[in-house]
Amino acid sequence: MVNETQHTCSASSSSKSDGGSSSGSESSKDSSRCSTPVLDAERHERLREKMRRRQDSGDRWFSLEFFPPRTANGAVNLISRFDRMAAGGPLFIDVTWHPAGDPGSDKETSSMIIANTAVNYCGLETILHMTCCNQTKDDITGHLQKAKKLGLKNIMALRGDPVGEEWEEEVHGFNYAVDLVKHIRNEFDDYFDICVAGYPTGHPEAESYEADLKYLKEKVLAGADFIITQLFFRSETFLKFMKDCQDIGITCPIIPGIFPIQGYHSLRQLVKLSKLEVPQEIKDVIEPIKDNDAAIRNYGVELAVSMCRELLDSGMVHGLHFYTLNREVATTEVLKRLGIWKEDPRRPLPWAVSAHPKRRVEDVRPIFWASRPKSYIYRTQEWDDFPNGRWGNSSSPAFGELKDYYLFYLKSKSAREDLLKMWGEELTGEESVFEVFTCYITGEPNKNGHKVTCMPWNDDPLATETNLLKEQLEKVNRRGILTINSQPNINGKPSTDPIVGWGPSGGYVFQKAYLEFFTSNEIVTALLKVLKKYESRVNYHIVNVKGQNITNAPDLQPNAVTWGIFPGREIIQPTVVDPVSFLYWKDEAFALWIEQWAKLYEEESPSRMIIQYIHDNYYLVNLVDNDFPLENCLWQVVDDTFELLN
Amino acid sequence: MVNETQHTCSASSSSKSDGGSSSGSESSKDSSRCSTPVLDAERHERLREKMRRRQDSGDRWFSLEFFPPRTANGAVNLISRFDRMAAGGPLFIDVTWHPAGDPGSDKETSSMIIANTAVNYCGLETILHMTCCNQTKDDITGHLQKAKKLGLKNIMALRGDPVGEEWEEEVHGFNYAVDLVKHIRNEFDDYFDICVAGYPTGHPEAESYEADLKYLKEKVLAGADFIITQLFFRSETFLKFMKDCQDIGITCPIIPGIFPIQGYHSLRQLVKLSKLEVPQEIKDVIEPIKDNDAAIRNYGVELAVSMCRELLDSGMVHGLHFYTLNREVATTEVLKRLGIWKEDPRRPLPWAVSAHPKRRVEDVRPIFWASRPKSYIYRTQEWDDFPNGRWGNSSSPAFGELKDYYLFYLKSKSAREDLLKMWGEELTGEESVFEVFTCYITGEPNKNGHKVTCMPWNDDPLATETNLLKEQLEKVNRRGILTINSQPNINGKPSTDPIVGWGPSGGYVFQKAYLEFFTSNEIVTALLKVLKKYESRVNYHIVNVKGQNITNAPDLQPNAVTWGIFPGREIIQPTVVDPVSFLYWKDEAFALWIEQWAKLYEEESPSRMIIQYIHDNYYLVNLVDNDFPLENCLWQVVDDTFELLN
Repeated sequence: MVNETQHTCSASSSSKSDGGSSSGSESSKDSSRCSTPVLDAERHERLREKMRRRQDSGDRWFSLEFFPPRTANGAVNLISRFDRMAAGGPLFIDVTWHPAGDPGSDKETSSMIIANTAVNYCGLETILHMTCCNQTKDDITGHLQKAKKLGLKNIMALRGDPVGEEWEEEVHGFNYAVDLVKHIRNEFDDYFDICVAGYPTGHPEAESYEADLKYLKEKVLAGADFIITQLFFRSETFLKFMKDCQDIGITCPIIPGIFPIQGYHSLRQLVKLSKLEVPQEIKDVIEPIKDNDAAIRNYGVELAVSMCRELLDSGMVHGLHFYTLNREVATTEVLKRLGIWKEDPRRPLPWAVSAHPKRRVEDVRPIFWASRPKSYIYRTQEWDDFPNGRWGNSSSPAFGELKDYYLFYLKSKSAREDLLKMWGEELTGEESVFEVFTCYITGEPNKNGHKVTCMPWNDDPLATETNLLKEQLEKVNRRGILTINSQPNINGKPSTDPIVGWGPSGGYVFQKAYLEFFTSNEIVTALLKVLKKYESRVNYHIVNVKGQNITNAPDLQPNAVTWGIFPGREIIQPTVVDPVSFLYWKDEAFALWIEQWAKLYEEESPSRMIIQYIHDNYYLVNLVDNDFPLENCLWQVVDDTFELLN
Repeated sequence: MVNETQHTCSASSSSKSDGGSSSGSESSKDSSRCSTPVLDAERHERLREKMRRRQDSGDRWFSLEFFPPRTANGAVNLISRFDRMAAGGPLFIDVTWHPAGDPGSDKETSSMIIANTAVNYCGLETILHMTCCNQTKDDITGHLQKAKKLGLKNIMALRGDPVGEEWEEEVHGFNYAVDLVKHIRNEFDDYFDICVAGYPTGHPEAESYEADLKYLKEKVLAGADFIITQLFFRSETFLKFMKDCQDIGITCPIIPGIFPIQGYHSLRQLVKLSKLEVPQEIKDVIEPIKDNDAAIRNYGVELAVSMCRELLDSGMVHGLHFYTLNREVATTEVLKRLGIWKEDPRRPLPWAVSAHPKRRVEDVRPIFWASRPKSYIYRTQEWDDFPNGRWGNSSSPAFGELKDYYLFYLKSKSAREDLLKMWGEELTGEESVFEVFTCYITGEPNKNGHKVTCMPWNDDPLATETNLLKEQLEKVNRRGILTINSQPNINGKPSTDPIVGWGPSGGYVFQKAYLEFFTSNEIVTALLKVLKKYESRVNYHIVNVKGQNITNAPDLQPNAVTWGIFPGREIIQPTVVDPVSFLYWKDEAFALWIEQWAKLYEEESPSRMIIQYIHDNYYLVNLVDNDFPLENCLWQVVDDTFELLN
């Protein structure tokens, strides 16, 4: 009878910890809090395991290659490109390494920092390229240690181009990628997943195609986990290469590198660098249209789509690697046409996760940073342990200071002149500030005809969920309740709900209604009178920039405001209103008035003084309606407050 | 404006852990799981703090004194008396110390073990008496260390009666209670709350009433936290004593010891021991009715009620201490008439809590032991840390063996002959076992006219909550689905619901439907076929005595089956179905067939063989319906199973 079932295991309760070992040492910490990884097995896996899982399940995937930008502005743009392209669900991205560009430095444009940002702030599985030629062992070890510390788990081990004409092999030096692979395995054991490069037509410097295959096998034997190939122009080239690899005993995944032709000059440059020959049939098409970028890109997309289809149809290819050249349109189009760009509206958690290994078990955050996840990650980057659901207790680490409002990954995507158009070239009083908040909520243009698409507290347009509250939000902002965060109450919607759902299917999600806003002393005075009527139902925290803090929260305990119930799981409660971290958030929320808004104006200008006045005198208020099964009473609280004022 | 509000505090986020310190070192462990103490402030407090809280709030309270029983059977009875009297809400109980009776030993009748049971298994705040006269320092330290290890937090420090006629003070010995108080404070710092005895009419051996008051003050100065008085017969006696104490500067709580007269002989004996004089007006009433126990007890109750009323009405008394003489009726009646017996149907958690300090933060248990909380506490007594919500992980401690089924606090309250009447003098087959289960569910007498009020897995009648499922349970037990644990699904009832509510008011409680039963191989085979249809909705664990284990639970994660949402709190999830601990429970659940039932019969008797057969061949099954907002599907699962069998 037992044979009829799928899951059978013989277990005896006398073997003390059977079963426990499977959860791995990192997840079996002292903390007994349920961690989200259970909800999302992939979040716990290394890249090579993810690849295998996709291969086993037959799910096709893609990955994206980027190079580090040249300027700080370029970095801001690249990071928002990461965020946008993350929506399509790449298995990983990789960041190239250019020895001349100080790639391991702390500069915002270095390979190291871009990869760090992708992992930690964009939540992307990331491979950092690294070359070894002309570098000392100590330098390389230093780069690897730094990468590890930053949470990077994957290295693309490359030789790199020798500097100078008369490069010669150094004895005991790093002459080939295989030396770097060996070094990583020697010094870091199995910590990193290692990728190496394959050359479908042989490396240009190799004696022969066959010799090059042997080098590739050596790299795999030295410890590489998978291979990404150089670009090629015909699917047959790759398929033959793959078969040849298999014939000599290379069994690890081999991922074809796809280069959608996007322009005449970029193609020429790449061909020159890679010493590849462009097939005549392609040249024949391109040469006549070489000055028509759009035509070339359309052709490149067509070509890439049909080559990718051949690869996927061969049954030998499960994933495709794209050389994006840091561009978005062509690759996205190819992926969409192939049907492997998969925008999944479901979220593993209500907030943007980070891919740093130590944050894999992070499953709870204060709601305050909901629109500033990168800032939250930045301010908690020194924390040793996640999850941490009790910021208030003495053992919890403190939040880092946020003085670096201009760190490229925290910076607004908009330029100063655009911000001035949105938020007003010249403010005439508090009411003109109310107007900005109101326009942001309604999506209507301001009186100068500009739409307000971001605010200092939120660099993106209103969340879909917040749209549910639009009408009420508009009303209250117009009257000086300047909302910066809110969520409706939810009494058990399916976890697959397109607007408020998160986590795996089959569950139910819940929310307590939340409202956070800046407002004047006068309104707060009335509000506090009204709140007495709601004492047992509504929890509030009211604080000004000096830290005067008024609350009815018991014992500085966090209040869970989002939670989910899933089949066969403990309860997940990913967002809380935490009284202690609110005081850290308060500093940031008030500072944003000055850093992002006031500083747009000349010192001592009336506009700047208006913002400064609000910063100095307003209160930051948050309200939670604990009675989630009933109709949200927070709007009534606000209405009562206005009524009292009239 | 800020002055208008009740809760105002000035806090700056730059002081790193402000607020956190208030939660105390024991609650601020690494674990970030929410702990129940938040729900019930008293559970975190020491006895003296609880007393102060009651005094401040004006809530009147009572406490109960017991002496250790003489026999093992007496111990069983006393423990179930503890459980019953706990229902009225005593602030604490205390257990007396009799040097001649080996009070610090491990015997089931020792003061130490009775106090241990009260704290750990009955969840009662407990004071252990301890005398010091004629004992060595090492002995006393040993007793105190043992008491601390067992989780006792309060000591009543007494001199005790000197042994022998010619007792003389020993130099540097323990001659008076004050020596013991000093010793406890020297050796154990502030760990214990210390109580000392007060004598409203002066200690019989004291030179004078005034001299005795001075001794009392010395005991308080040496570190006693409060005073319980010897019994007295008139409220004036106590009130004068209390005033005299205050006049010489004794400020700690003084609790009057109340002795409801329960019989002529017990009164005479007590008077002899305490060398008190019974007032003439009482003698006048008692002497004529000295052979009428009921009349004396009625009189004693009247007398106690009126004296207690005078004490409480004086405004000086907040708590009353009762000398119960291990009896229940008189004290309970006095308390009920005074209105301070407070049966609170609300539970802090869905299960019986333990008062051991290390378990103060315990907030989650596997559902399996729901009807055997004492066994759960016993089997986890060696655990160092609570809460522990992840029995499955490698860092969690193992469950202790349960071989001692006859430990007095785990033993059935019923005698062998009563069990045989309930469970059958002679079994004729599996059907007669089905009949026993069915009668337990329905409450109807069995065919010999006896009601089945307990089962090996549950020493009490059916829980009120289970009554909700009675009809279905009856049907399935009749057909051989032998249920031992179940709960209905609950989709957000108020936490004050009289049947399924728990925790503070203003919250909402939830449950997933749960069903646990023994059943035959044949039924399990059909059940597994049926369960395929419910794969994504129902989680199951099916195991036989040999440990063959069939489950669809993901990754050995616990499944939360009871949880509560409260204002301003994190989610509380006090019961889970935990796959790993299920295998420990399985051993116990199967063993109970043999230990509690089979062993009632002669070896090799047909009745015994029937139970042995079930033990060897049946499966233990648990089912969880994850879709708590929908109608419970578990009955449908069972119906489908029977249908498949037909």
